[in-house]
Amino acid sequence: MELQLLLTGNEIMSGDTVDSNSSMIAQRIAREGYWVDRKVTVGDDLEQLVAEIRQISDSADILIINGGLGPTVDDLTAAALAQAAGVELEENADAAQHVTSWCAARGFHANAANMKQAILPTGVKLLENSVGSAVGFSLTLNRCLIMCTPGVPSELRAMLENAVLPMLRASHPQPDKPEILRYQTFGLGESGAQQMLDDAFPDWPEDIEVGFRAGAPMLEMKLRISSSCTADKRALWQDRFLSVLGDYVVGRDDTRLPEAIVELLAQRGQTVALAESCTGGLIASMLTAIPGSSAVFEMGLVSYSNAIKHSQLGVQLTTLDAQGAVSEACVLEMANGVCQQASSDYAIAVSGIAGPDGGTDEKPVGTVWVAWGPKNAIRAKQFHYPLGRHLFQTMISALALDLLRRDLLGLTQEPAYFGRFRPR
Amino acid sequence: MELQLLLTGNEIMSGDTVDSNSSMIAQRIAREGYWVDRKVTVGDDLEQLVAEIRQISDSADILIINGGLGPTVDDLTAAALAQAAGVELEENADAAQHVTSWCAARGFHANAANMKQAILPTGVKLLENSVGSAVGFSLTLNRCLIMCTPGVPSELRAMLENAVLPMLRASHPQPDKPEILRYQTFGLGESGAQQMLDDAFPDWPEDIEVGFRAGAPMLEMKLRISSSCTADKRALWQDRFLSVLGDYVVGRDDTRLPEAIVELLAQRGQTVALAESCTGGLIASMLTAIPGSSAVFEMGLVSYSNAIKHSQLGVQLTTLDAQGAVSEACVLEMANGVCQQASSDYAIAVSGIAGPDGGTDEKPVGTVWVAWGPKNAIRAKQFHYPLGRHLFQTMISALALDLLRRDLLGLTQEPAYFGRFRPR
Repeated sequence: MELQLLLTGNEIMSGDTVDSNSSMIAQRIAREGYWVDRKVTVGDDLEQLVAEIRQISDSADILIINGGLGPTVDDLTAAALAQAAGVELEENADAAQHVTSWCAARGFHANAANMKQAILPTGVKLLENSVGSAVGFSLTLNRCLIMCTPGVPSELRAMLENAVLPMLRASHPQPDKPEILRYQTFGLGESGAQQMLDDAFPDWPEDIEVGFRAGAPMLEMKLRISSSCTADKRALWQDRFLSVLGDYVVGRDDTRLPEAIVELLAQRGQTVALAESCTGGLIASMLTAIPGSSAVFEMGLVSYSNAIKHSQLGVQLTTLDAQGAVSEACVLEMANGVCQQASSDYAIAVSGIAGPDGGTDEKPVGTVWVAWGPKNAIRAKQFHYPLGRHLFQTMISALALDLLRRDLLGLTQEPAYFGRFRPR
Repeated sequence: MELQLLLTGNEIMSGDTVDSNSSMIAQRIAREGYWVDRKVTVGDDLEQLVAEIRQISDSADILIINGGLGPTVDDLTAAALAQAAGVELEENADAAQHVTSWCAARGFHANAANMKQAILPTGVKLLENSVGSAVGFSLTLNRCLIMCTPGVPSELRAMLENAVLPMLRASHPQPDKPEILRYQTFGLGESGAQQMLDDAFPDWPEDIEVGFRAGAPMLEMKLRISSSCTADKRALWQDRFLSVLGDYVVGRDDTRLPEAIVELLAQRGQTVALAESCTGGLIASMLTAIPGSSAVFEMGLVSYSNAIKHSQLGVQLTTLDAQGAVSEACVLEMANGVCQQASSDYAIAVSGIAGPDGGTDEKPVGTVWVAWGPKNAIRAKQFHYPLGRHLFQTMISALALDLLRRDLLGLTQEPAYFGRFRPR
């Protein structure tokens, strides 16, 4: 079975828009055992679209076209498919009904531009769009099943579920639909994780494929379990996988560090307070991006200057004078200070040098102290991540959350990144 | 002149990596007057690569291949190009020298995998890689100039500047190299901005093209000025553009809201303090992402609970009881409180309902109060953006910074988004 994608849009060709739709399509169909063999992208050009559709339909079994279904003159997919298939364009009654009711539900009358979306090649089958006004449609040409989908990501996502996948399954049932288990990990790189598995299990089975999706600072690991794999074997190797990666696994599916922290604290009815210097509010914004975080988080202080560390958190002037803001004593006082102010159960405090300026010989850019723990047992550790300002802030925020996660879970084994600090 | 891209990589086909390289290439060459006509993406498959190279080189003048230059067995670009061109693979002395010195500079000896990167088709010209170990190379096949570039974005970026663009300019000089002016705007959508220009200037000239790049919540607008455009005409229409969009333009090139705020405050030697509830630290993290922000920002308080609003910012319990945390009185007290605590010149405070929970009939999800201004003249305004939690937080953070920007610049005209609040 050969499956191809054809993407259209001047904004993709110019680079003004980064195409993430094809990634969404590939990932979604992979969960059903399908694979994209080839992808072609062209601008909004009728002649080019017609030529590509003709050529691809000669060899492929499935062609998913994405984009060009909108109301403007640049949206050419329907016209191109009609021309490639040698059929007429005509108003499709069901499509017209969809556009009219979509507009009516939003309190306006469909105008000519809207109604253009109902002008489709003769003989198409409609693909349900539960989200937007664009009409999806399919046609078989040269034995190739062609499905035309909208460029708006939310509309594409819905149409994949409601229409594209059902048609795929019906036309080309995939006997080997794999099971894909996804794990969010922190503290390992791709090669390090692979090495750990290779070392522990040189006989790793072929029908359980290990995959990675880099999403710095976290790493998503995937087990792609072939349908031929027995339940016992699956359970055995899943256990083995977790026995090696155990502490590094933050959660299943989309449970990343902030989700894990909110869940762990919510289960216990406990709270955390934050005192951030070099991360500048990023840890707070990561936590508060999660619905329900208000149950576990009441206060974060971004104390970006020494004056504020002193006045708001009670960091002693002698500490700041003698050891500086990037010091063990300072982050401990920051964490204890905010813990007290917020009457929280846990606290995190961070102070470091994000750069590009502010480094010294003794404390170069990338140096950071993190304090974390429960209110009467807060401890601190130094790290050194000279990664550039943006990546440094992202990495340290995640690292601080991971330290708290390990504390909440009572994990005692030191993660590999404890070795990342290289004292000078 | 026809220019095509060929991208290779299983991680792109599977969707595990979103391809942003082709966007980088398209945007960079657009500044020199070049345009990508077609883009093909395939996995790491020798036969497919050979077929694509042969077919594309039949019609295109330029083919840029991206990816597949690394040291692993999956990296097939050199082998595919050799096979497509019908030449041998051999160790290239200059390439071997590059790989050897690159490894030596990092304190290790090049191993067999590294040296594989020096095995290239006979007769290629090398493309300089100032950043990494991968060797770029070019070859002319069927009158098509083929340039092979690395998949690592930083290496690609450097090679575009140092090798690809010079070869492009030399082989296909572009007489019409346009000038591209980029402006970062806030408060307008694409269609709204286009409408304002259309209304003001129905006679907008054809040789100055207006372009957009959506980057919610900001909108980048571009003027693409053809080389045929005279300096006078260019100046006239640039003025006209700015006269219509003036207040909405935050900055040139990459000056977005946080950069603009840091710059404006730094010029005056003034500071801002933040009290955030529903944005949860996002405004602080946007400001502190900018190098040099410590000069203008000392304190941000994330007061996520009513208790903290009261204890840390002095919001009165009667205010919270009578009007609630999402109220004019509350954000005014928050802003004045944090301004006083931080002894800052300006303050911003935000309190709203990000959702998905917490909405009421009177204050539905998406309701938010923002307070902003100089220490003795802080004012507040209500908005309603039911956009979903993530987009709501992003939009309100940007909006709050824009309100401060307008205050700092003394802009008195109300932006269109003041009309966004629809009282019930």
